[in-house]
Amino acid sequence: MLIDGLQYCNWSPKIFNQWREGGVDCVHVTIAYHEMFRETVANMEQWNRWFEDYHDIITLAYTAADVEAAKAAGKTAVIFGFQNPSPIEDDIGLVEVLHRLGARFMQLTYNNQSLLATGCYEDDDTGLTRMGREVVEEMNRVGMVVDMSHSAERSTLEAAEFSSRPIVVSHANPSFWHPARRNKSDDILKALAETGGMLGFSLYPHHLNQGSDCSLDDFCRMIADTADKMGIDHIGFGSDLCQDQPDSVVEWMRVGRWTKKIDYGEGSASNAGFPDMPVWFQDNRHWQNILDGLAKTGFSSHDIAKIAGLNWLEFFRRSFDPLPKD
Amino acid sequence: MLIDGLQYCNWSPKIFNQWREGGVDCVHVTIAYHEMFRETVANMEQWNRWFEDYHDIITLAYTAADVEAAKAAGKTAVIFGFQNPSPIEDDIGLVEVLHRLGARFMQLTYNNQSLLATGCYEDDDTGLTRMGREVVEEMNRVGMVVDMSHSAERSTLEAAEFSSRPIVVSHANPSFWHPARRNKSDDILKALAETGGMLGFSLYPHHLNQGSDCSLDDFCRMIADTADKMGIDHIGFGSDLCQDQPDSVVEWMRVGRWTKKIDYGEGSASNAGFPDMPVWFQDNRHWQNILDGLAKTGFSSHDIAKIAGLNWLEFFRRSFDPLPKD
Repeated sequence: MLIDGLQYCNWSPKIFNQWREGGVDCVHVTIAYHEMFRETVANMEQWNRWFEDYHDIITLAYTAADVEAAKAAGKTAVIFGFQNPSPIEDDIGLVEVLHRLGARFMQLTYNNQSLLATGCYEDDDTGLTRMGREVVEEMNRVGMVVDMSHSAERSTLEAAEFSSRPIVVSHANPSFWHPARRNKSDDILKALAETGGMLGFSLYPHHLNQGSDCSLDDFCRMIADTADKMGIDHIGFGSDLCQDQPDSVVEWMRVGRWTKKIDYGEGSASNAGFPDMPVWFQDNRHWQNILDGLAKTGFSSHDIAKIAGLNWLEFFRRSFDPLPKD
Repeated sequence: MLIDGLQYCNWSPKIFNQWREGGVDCVHVTIAYHEMFRETVANMEQWNRWFEDYHDIITLAYTAADVEAAKAAGKTAVIFGFQNPSPIEDDIGLVEVLHRLGARFMQLTYNNQSLLATGCYEDDDTGLTRMGREVVEEMNRVGMVVDMSHSAERSTLEAAEFSSRPIVVSHANPSFWHPARRNKSDDILKALAETGGMLGFSLYPHHLNQGSDCSLDDFCRMIADTADKMGIDHIGFGSDLCQDQPDSVVEWMRVGRWTKKIDYGEGSASNAGFPDMPVWFQDNRHWQNILDGLAKTGFSSHDIAKIAGLNWLEFFRRSFDPLPKD
């Protein structure tokens, strides 16, 4: 079982075929950054057309069982998620509606303050807001996973504590390895592990030591060091692969509609676009390089299977269904 | 000139006629609490019908000159405002669009955290967010007034400091008189006065010493004490009159769509609805009681004229036009 905890590609049949070629059984796909409800539904409609047209290779997954069934049928399972709470706008009732339509992950923030919590690019971090606490409780109830990938430190720790179900950082790396603003502190790694959550290792160059020049060996040793800290059960992949996207898209991700200026986020004026992926992970056909790297680093095949997908699968099993009614 | 800095009535021809009967020349009316862009435009459409149907007594004002012209024509001038930034959603471009449609005041928050700043019912206050600073700059540019009536302390002080144009608290009273959560500290009063802003005195019972039983004399003495602190040029009225509203409306104001529970805001489970107005200010026909009270308290007719409307008019003159292009 090979599961990628986050991708945001410029989706096409080419990429769906590369999923199959690379043996990717399941991908959590981002379908909203700044899109609000109606725009998010339109993005779901586009996916529904793809599920109809390419039904022999891709299918929407609502549950862990759907992911297993997809694998058995030789298809890649797609799980919907949002990198911002924009799709629920100001309306807690949209959590249940969007879950029904397939959404299984929602970040409480992208880089900025949201109605729910604080993003990692703000100067100050209030933690969960009043609405944030209400929405986390509702996400817990319906089975939508709280994702804190782009959130600030206090907000992330409060979400881990307040949420009655495990939370995730679907795509980031540890700060101890590469102290980027988007990477996560030891306190967060500890909170994820202790509460049964997940960290998905990112392959986005801004999150990598040495950026695009990061070596496979260095990346795999970081995974080994993180496993030592967090245990083997709470780690997986979250590649953040943004294949075939034009640079206008990374501008939309960072700028949305909140400013009239340009915000470079993790980039800079001289490096504003998408960075080059490492040579050993150019697209979904290269996952075997990483699995081989992990073996070379000393992981057992049992542990590699967990990191590659079984941990995410087990997490999905515990997370996507509504809580039993009391 | 008699100007009320904020009302949120269940508008009707009856109330428009009471405006005329009470000699009210201009009212800043709230047309959005939690309404988003499209819903706000629908509320403007309703007002446009009223302006068409009752053109002999009410008219929309875009400028201070419009207010003066309305008075000369024997009409009450209406100024549009929002008690939350919901109408701009996540889109800074909507500031200019909504200004063009008549909006002249926007609160950066209602009671909760917004995308721009922190409301007075949150536990913690980050001040202006990244988007908040961008939006204040855009409001300054187009001539939309920053209103911090429901915002938390730090956010309010930062808005006063960051904004290049004066800001207001359109409807609240000083904490030194009645330490309600919605009333304002001496630091805020000082910041409003020093930056050329305005405080509108509220007649909403939760903001009054002794609530609905507040005496006219006590209210007028509070105005005198505030004038001593702030000077005579930065104070006016902002009655917060919510005439003829059913209690379901105060629930909407407080709860919006952010929680599935009930939030009582300034009220309580045993006092959840709109409070009774003081006997000396039941509706717009009672403004003369307050003007008489101010005279009895010792204000000169010159100073009463300033408080009654000339201060707001002068503020409008400085605030509603776009900044000159550089």
